[in-house]
Amino acid sequence: MSNKTIPYKIYLEENEMPKAWYNLRADMKNKPAPLLNPSTKQPMTKDELKGVFCDELITQELDDTTPYFEIPKEILEFYKMYRPSPLVRAYRLEEKLNTPAKIYYKFEGNNTSGSHKLNSAIAQAYYAKKQGLKGVTTETGAGQWGSALSMACSYFDLDCKVYMVKVSYEQKPFRREVMRTYGASVTPSPSTETEVGRKILATHPQTTGSLGCAISEAVEKATTTEGYRYVLGSVLNQVLLHQSIIGLETKAALDKYSIIADIIIGCAGGGSNLGGLIAPFMKEKIKGERNYRIIAVEPASCPSLTRGKYAYDFCDTGMICPLAKMYTLGSNYIPAPNHAGGLRYHGMSSTLSQLYDDGLMEAVSVKQTDVFKAAEEFARIEGILPAPESSHAIKVAIDEALKCKETGEEKTIVFGLTGTGYFDMAAYGKYHDGLMENYIPSDEEINNSLLQLPTI
Amino acid sequence: MSNKTIPYKIYLEENEMPKAWYNLRADMKNKPAPLLNPSTKQPMTKDELKGVFCDELITQELDDTTPYFEIPKEILEFYKMYRPSPLVRAYRLEEKLNTPAKIYYKFEGNNTSGSHKLNSAIAQAYYAKKQGLKGVTTETGAGQWGSALSMACSYFDLDCKVYMVKVSYEQKPFRREVMRTYGASVTPSPSTETEVGRKILATHPQTTGSLGCAISEAVEKATTTEGYRYVLGSVLNQVLLHQSIIGLETKAALDKYSIIADIIIGCAGGGSNLGGLIAPFMKEKIKGERNYRIIAVEPASCPSLTRGKYAYDFCDTGMICPLAKMYTLGSNYIPAPNHAGGLRYHGMSSTLSQLYDDGLMEAVSVKQTDVFKAAEEFARIEGILPAPESSHAIKVAIDEALKCKETGEEKTIVFGLTGTGYFDMAAYGKYHDGLMENYIPSDEEINNSLLQLPTI
Repeated sequence: MSNKTIPYKIYLEENEMPKAWYNLRADMKNKPAPLLNPSTKQPMTKDELKGVFCDELITQELDDTTPYFEIPKEILEFYKMYRPSPLVRAYRLEEKLNTPAKIYYKFEGNNTSGSHKLNSAIAQAYYAKKQGLKGVTTETGAGQWGSALSMACSYFDLDCKVYMVKVSYEQKPFRREVMRTYGASVTPSPSTETEVGRKILATHPQTTGSLGCAISEAVEKATTTEGYRYVLGSVLNQVLLHQSIIGLETKAALDKYSIIADIIIGCAGGGSNLGGLIAPFMKEKIKGERNYRIIAVEPASCPSLTRGKYAYDFCDTGMICPLAKMYTLGSNYIPAPNHAGGLRYHGMSSTLSQLYDDGLMEAVSVKQTDVFKAAEEFARIEGILPAPESSHAIKVAIDEALKCKETGEEKTIVFGLTGTGYFDMAAYGKYHDGLMENYIPSDEEINNSLLQLPTI
Repeated sequence: MSNKTIPYKIYLEENEMPKAWYNLRADMKNKPAPLLNPSTKQPMTKDELKGVFCDELITQELDDTTPYFEIPKEILEFYKMYRPSPLVRAYRLEEKLNTPAKIYYKFEGNNTSGSHKLNSAIAQAYYAKKQGLKGVTTETGAGQWGSALSMACSYFDLDCKVYMVKVSYEQKPFRREVMRTYGASVTPSPSTETEVGRKILATHPQTTGSLGCAISEAVEKATTTEGYRYVLGSVLNQVLLHQSIIGLETKAALDKYSIIADIIIGCAGGGSNLGGLIAPFMKEKIKGERNYRIIAVEPASCPSLTRGKYAYDFCDTGMICPLAKMYTLGSNYIPAPNHAGGLRYHGMSSTLSQLYDDGLMEAVSVKQTDVFKAAEEFARIEGILPAPESSHAIKVAIDEALKCKETGEEKTIVFGLTGTGYFDMAAYGKYHDGLMENYIPSDEEINNSLLQLPTI
């Protein structure tokens, strides 16, 4: 470590900011498996994807050889509104834990959408605008992605149509108002606006919706409406590419002070934040330049990496999307209604799945009440009120720091603090009132769900 | 203006941060009138205030000659968690308005409490702790101050007892949960816990409470409980002193790039943010070094400066607090239920009242729907979702920028963006649904309320 004093928060100067996204796939020895056409079981071609995604995003999605993609200047300009995000040294948490470990977190919550999702939302909106489209469709569960996308679309004057899982639409009216403030239209899903929505409602009139179902509706709407495309906030390669800004900034900030990380921790739902955070570190690990421990943290109620199967699966409930090879719990797996809505997806990014399968990454699952305990402790000590999703990483960072206390090791721990919990106070309230439950699926439940995997 | 390129956001380096608060009263030619004992009508002495406030805060409250108070290192340490706040150049808003004006805003919302209130909360908690107290009591309306104080008390391990205006307690359960997350106890006011609360409930069993009533309860609780004192988030001189950090940082950031402000704008409820923001600029104005236009913006529904009377009045409904000379609408004035809870106080800081009376400051009142229109426009353009309170300043900053467009003047406008609106989405929803009303009190209503002023 250098002799420079390390500030409480490390901000990069404008001229130190990354100018290109990093495409980790280019350096992976075992490439992530390609998306397959569900009818032909052959890799999806650019042409087949054209009706669904914007052209340039398809290029990014399919390219596993180009290491860097220049960030368009319009996006760099937008990033200036809230980037660089600070890399914070958790001096006070270290002190409270009485650990020799050094803890840093990259805080992505200082923008109105409240999370890292904006990094990719603005990129996807930009390419849609550049292609001359009228608008985009998407789904949102907890509402972080929907909020981010509405901000991005408002910036580029694009129409934004959000299908919001019905139960969230009803329970989180304030998230809905944020999206409306940014001019988005928000429809509770399943809706009668789409074929797939009507079908689901006919079969299950009382359903409160699911992410997989909202995806199906958003894709149908995009592919059947002139001038629209579908965009997605996680799982996809293009999203991980955009999110590499998190890792690149983190690495640059650490390098600026000659700090070398030992452990890198992130929460993992679809993998967007984790994939972005670890990208430049994983590059060094793959090349054998440095041996980081990299840990994905998932909820015990939706443990795709730790208890799922590495196989081709559907990405949505309606089974209209391409097949992706990933660690999955089965596309019909319905996670218990835990309060980390952003981590309730049945699968995991194919890039992260491959890295995990190659033994380059660890994974651990944690219980909801332990997560909220860590969240509250963190809020009181570090000031920031974390999102439940982000708090999964906090929980494991604290665990690792406590291990260092036992062994006396001065490890450097870096974790991703993806967002704030302002819209999750109902969940905090349940925790305060002792009403929060933990749900851990049985092996039988997971196995049953996995029976429905497509045969490839 | 220098040739240095002005970044989108100006951050001060740690070594450029203010190390002392600035006490504007020391440089005022006409000092603000002293607090009076309601029984004797004589200036409150230090001894008389001891049961209510912490000792060092009383010193700060009464001192109108010492220009600078060193910021204790413990507070400087805490400030590092979220300060410096950025001074943002609103390049995009300028472009959208097509104005030659240059617009800057000092953004105080990037901390979990969501507003500038934390600047004084941490100071007041610090002095309470230093005095060996067990805890503090306070009131909160919209919840910004209560959230900030609970964070501060949690940091110093102090008990925090918040009386929350009943209607807010019921309508803003999430604000309540933020306070609980930080370990505060939150009681809807009026409550049966205090003499004054029971009295009010006996007379008005259906009351939804008011700020003035909650203040009375908090003061009673503090003065009748061993080891407790009362703290307040606005109006008082001590609060303006702590909030000078906003203005000092703003001035330092402008000076760093040789930018000279022409107009400085802030919203004004009790005056904490405005008093803090303008302090170093007003100093230069008083000394005749520079002639800034300084504008206080208040809601048309609670227009203490623009339509109130400059007179001694009670600070609370229960009439147990000292009398303050201020622009007031009368302590029984009940503002219409507008959505800028932080601006619904009947009076105005005695320092700001004196400056206004001396013609050193302008004041303007704005209608609620115009404020939300400006808020939404700002959110879409600048990305930040503003609090309704802060949006009062946005509205007038836009108005002034549009005047520059007409005249072609390249004025530099600086305004205070005090906080975020995450907990105000119900109000945004009303605005979106066209259900928001404007209320402007009649002259008769104000005159009737002013009949109850105490005779001095």
